[in-house]
Amino acid sequence: MYNTAEIIAVGTELLLGSIANTDGQMLSQVLNEAGVSVLYHTVVGDNPARLSQAVQTACRRVDLVVITGGLGPTYDDITCRVVSEALGLPLEYRAQAEADMRQYFDTMLHREMPLCNLQQAWLPQGAEIFRNRVGTAPGCVIETREATVALLPGVPHECRTMAREQLLPWLVKRTGQVIVSRQFRIFGLTEAQVQELLGPIMDHAVNPSLAPYAQTGQVLVRMTARGPSEDACRQLMEPLLPQVRQRLGDCLYSEDGASLAGTVVHLLAKAGLTLATAESCTGGLIAKELTDIPGASAVFRGGVVSYTNEVKAQVLQVPRQLLEEYGAVSAPVAKAMAQGARRITGAQLAISVTGVAGPDRDDRDNPVGTVFLGLAGPEGVRVRQLALGSGERNYIRILAALHALDMVRREITHTQGQKE
Amino acid sequence: MYNTAEIIAVGTELLLGSIANTDGQMLSQVLNEAGVSVLYHTVVGDNPARLSQAVQTACRRVDLVVITGGLGPTYDDITCRVVSEALGLPLEYRAQAEADMRQYFDTMLHREMPLCNLQQAWLPQGAEIFRNRVGTAPGCVIETREATVALLPGVPHECRTMAREQLLPWLVKRTGQVIVSRQFRIFGLTEAQVQELLGPIMDHAVNPSLAPYAQTGQVLVRMTARGPSEDACRQLMEPLLPQVRQRLGDCLYSEDGASLAGTVVHLLAKAGLTLATAESCTGGLIAKELTDIPGASAVFRGGVVSYTNEVKAQVLQVPRQLLEEYGAVSAPVAKAMAQGARRITGAQLAISVTGVAGPDRDDRDNPVGTVFLGLAGPEGVRVRQLALGSGERNYIRILAALHALDMVRREITHTQGQKE
Repeated sequence: MYNTAEIIAVGTELLLGSIANTDGQMLSQVLNEAGVSVLYHTVVGDNPARLSQAVQTACRRVDLVVITGGLGPTYDDITCRVVSEALGLPLEYRAQAEADMRQYFDTMLHREMPLCNLQQAWLPQGAEIFRNRVGTAPGCVIETREATVALLPGVPHECRTMAREQLLPWLVKRTGQVIVSRQFRIFGLTEAQVQELLGPIMDHAVNPSLAPYAQTGQVLVRMTARGPSEDACRQLMEPLLPQVRQRLGDCLYSEDGASLAGTVVHLLAKAGLTLATAESCTGGLIAKELTDIPGASAVFRGGVVSYTNEVKAQVLQVPRQLLEEYGAVSAPVAKAMAQGARRITGAQLAISVTGVAGPDRDDRDNPVGTVFLGLAGPEGVRVRQLALGSGERNYIRILAALHALDMVRREITHTQGQKE
Repeated sequence: MYNTAEIIAVGTELLLGSIANTDGQMLSQVLNEAGVSVLYHTVVGDNPARLSQAVQTACRRVDLVVITGGLGPTYDDITCRVVSEALGLPLEYRAQAEADMRQYFDTMLHREMPLCNLQQAWLPQGAEIFRNRVGTAPGCVIETREATVALLPGVPHECRTMAREQLLPWLVKRTGQVIVSRQFRIFGLTEAQVQELLGPIMDHAVNPSLAPYAQTGQVLVRMTARGPSEDACRQLMEPLLPQVRQRLGDCLYSEDGASLAGTVVHLLAKAGLTLATAESCTGGLIAKELTDIPGASAVFRGGVVSYTNEVKAQVLQVPRQLLEEYGAVSAPVAKAMAQGARRITGAQLAISVTGVAGPDRDDRDNPVGTVFLGLAGPEGVRVRQLALGSGERNYIRILAALHALDMVRREITHTQGQKE
């Protein structure tokens, strides 16, 4: 049974600030889900002495040490060797690890495995291997009388896949209690507003707990229950759900952590509708978000990224006269883009975005953050104007995409609501 | 003079995995720029005992401790009090801090300052205040005989603003040397291959140092030099550059940290070319990556996300007979998509992607990871087939987009090379 954990990330690139410690964040989520409290994150460089000391300190102060990074085939990948020494264990050659790596090179990379990768087949004696199906570095977990240490690769998608598919099940087997959490997602309220709305029920909610946090343009609320079984956890959550729903109203778009794009894909499928996109300033971001969702192909017909007036006119059939009279960033063009996308793709709904993401004003002197959304459907076309402020280009693009997806969401739920 | 630093981030939300430690990343960059080596990142929760111990450990092992978070007005904002105690200093009321906060509430928030914010005007005795022009929490730096500790707010944009505008100038005044680093980016080689290629020059490279690391589908190499001035650093790097270029060959696509999309936008602009996209399985990702780059509008005309055969046929003008005979995921369709995108957008080059991102095989039983790229230009159209393995849907999409961008990059550099 593990109550407490420390996550150690190994890599000089983290200390140089080249990348953020996203492995630490993801592993925190996984450990918390398994009911293990994370007390520390530590980052050290590819330095044997400092890593060794960090491992020993961690082993003294928590039950479970999870180390990520430094498992690669190069000379500065020191984790396995250092951890072995810190735990007083020899390294041991593991045929299974070599076989997995050879197979990965064979079937995924279609080339011979370089000799240096053999280093990765040497693991601390007695380690239980975590096989890596999306990369070469095997992970493992070592249990000694003094400490339990898990090693995972640092490459984010390898780390994530191994944490979810191997570390988490391994942990759940060993801890007696489970944690069930569900994530509510909100668009259209600030974190402070959510805090105010949920405040009265948050004070009394120790188990389950309610914790709001802000994400770019959105607010997430995590409800977490702890109990002897998943059913017990769910029963603890049940009485709180109607209150959360009532207080957040129609700004609450998902209760299972689904993204706004995921929610839209789901609602479209449920309503038997199809969607198309016509994107100018978001440049494909909405289409990308929609097609991130497995199964999007059933409801998303396609889209046009019309980054120039010529593409708006030729592909989306926006009348040139509108472009000349009102400019590309205007309500009439947003409407025509949506109608054009709907017409050429044959989708029932089409959403369009045209705006100024910056860094500069457009040629008609529209300020950065000016965005028009158009939504075309069987009953006509509507337009919304947004002023998204003068923030960073990418922030404006993300916000514009969220507003567009939310406009589609509200359209579907409203229409379906009327039918029922 | 500070040689080494530790960054301590305070906040339970970091340990829950609700957010990544982006403050740690940003502060690392700032400290490294000032010539201070960051040896550790530590994250602790809002827990006085653990924070106190972390501060004391840090003061023993580095010259400069930078702490972020826990400076707010609520009961769980413990940083100032804990640091004061750890350093053996009383807290001291600072009229300047209160005046700044009142002004911020007045001019920025347009409301009365709540009483609880007064807590933030109490700082460790003798601290030099870092004024906060984008929030309420003042930062500060405390120099005692034993240690130097800087405190910054945790809210990312407040932390970033204060680090750049106050901490950095303060540091540069106190340290004699600077660090200059540049990032080489590589596509088409694994981390191990890069290591093998650069190994002979890496062993001898202490200053400047060379460190490769893997990113999804790519490899980054950071060259870092340390010296009394930026010029001195650049002179140290100079002799190594031709060797790095020669060894990495045409897999090296950027020497200034520019992304592959950024490199393509730059090359297109330099060559006076325009580009269009026709995306099936990448669903807009390539267009999104290109339009992430400010100034993309000068070279990127637009694209089509053809997620259905109807859109491929109607919008991209792919002959229906090809779709029926070979299926959507095929070389002929990839070619026709690229040609269609080129034709309808009027771009000189067009890149197409059609493939199976998963989770399932397509209707013609093509395995997950099967991807065709088409590249159409004035001289005709070429096609490439990729087998990207059976990884996660998003991983395959990212890899496919990188391969597509790289195909465009190679086309431009090859064509330009021939002209010269």
